[in-house]
Amino acid sequence: MENNRFKQQIDFILELDKEKNILRQNHLTGYVRRENDAEHAWHMAIMVYLLKEYANKDFDIAKAMMMALIHDVVEIDAGDTYAYDPKAKLDQKEREDKAAQRIFALLPPDQCEELKALFFEFETCESAEAKFVRAMDNFQPLLLNDANDGVDWKNHGVTLEQIMNRQMRSAKGSQKVWEETEKIIQKNVEKQNIIKE
Amino acid sequence: MENNRFKQQIDFILELDKEKNILRQNHLTGYVRRENDAEHAWHMAIMVYLLKEYANKDFDIAKAMMMALIHDVVEIDAGDTYAYDPKAKLDQKEREDKAAQRIFALLPPDQCEELKALFFEFETCESAEAKFVRAMDNFQPLLLNDANDGVDWKNHGVTLEQIMNRQMRSAKGSQKVWEETEKIIQKNVEKQNIIKE
Repeated sequence: MENNRFKQQIDFILELDKEKNILRQNHLTGYVRRENDAEHAWHMAIMVYLLKEYANKDFDIAKAMMMALIHDVVEIDAGDTYAYDPKAKLDQKEREDKAAQRIFALLPPDQCEELKALFFEFETCESAEAKFVRAMDNFQPLLLNDANDGVDWKNHGVTLEQIMNRQMRSAKGSQKVWEETEKIIQKNVEKQNIIKE
Repeated sequence: MENNRFKQQIDFILELDKEKNILRQNHLTGYVRRENDAEHAWHMAIMVYLLKEYANKDFDIAKAMMMALIHDVVEIDAGDTYAYDPKAKLDQKEREDKAAQRIFALLPPDQCEELKALFFEFETCESAEAKFVRAMDNFQPLLLNDANDGVDWKNHGVTLEQIMNRQMRSAKGSQKVWEETEKIIQKNVEKQNIIKE
């Protein structure tokens, strides 16, 4: 029984390896190549820890870090959905919910329930942890895009309205991160990296 | 003053991005390509959380996860040192200590001291957190190598003695992980993936 539990945990851990092959739309600094989901989640979890002083509300740090680390696991099945692709976003929730059911079920029942709850808590974005992790999920690629002089925004023809719709949700997790986000967006509008319609 | 603090944090966060370009010797499952440091650390931090029940001693989970996430930051300057390369290991400590001084100094003083302490705590490997994180640092590539039928061990001509010298330290963090490690090593010796001299 105990060994079956360990085997289930290892099966899930090995399945996670696939997340390293899921490419996102944004590039690493220096524009060397596209970033993958595992790298993005690693970066985000460190940011959760280092920027926690700016959260609007106190939160459970280990819970938030684990939420950041696993928030994109569903993309192993569902693929990456670009934040500014309205068509792909139509069935995103359906694809990701199905993936969550399959992937977390590899774990022993108690950990399956725990991680599924953590994933859906991130998705509904009502807890202090989820709001702050969401702010980091927005802020991390924004920093990389800005460091690359907005090339990804330019190449995708992203508009100010699209960016604002996504990024303004960061204010729910951190007023400070939102203020810094606004400055970065403003700078990139002035440089015409982001289209102001 | 406060904005200088935020800028220092962002400078460090952007510097971290380079860790995604530091390649390790082991490959991802499916042998698609070599793994990088950020992916390895992401995988390890999740393992710290999911396998914590097997730790010999209770530990602070957020601290251990952060330790896992940043334990290879020094390789941005010092490069990856292969676990089974005795020549490269000669000046590894000197190279990595120097890197730690430069990279963590990008942070505000309090966080610089906190992360440096966390890094050196991992290196000296005496606390419960460090011992368990070290066990995950050993176990994660072992799982990938085993999933790839030991190709990396074969290609590097790794001996049983070399592997045991490294892996047996996992027992200090988790007796259970060490027992499972021994089974995996034994299997790969029988398959002649690991050289028994």
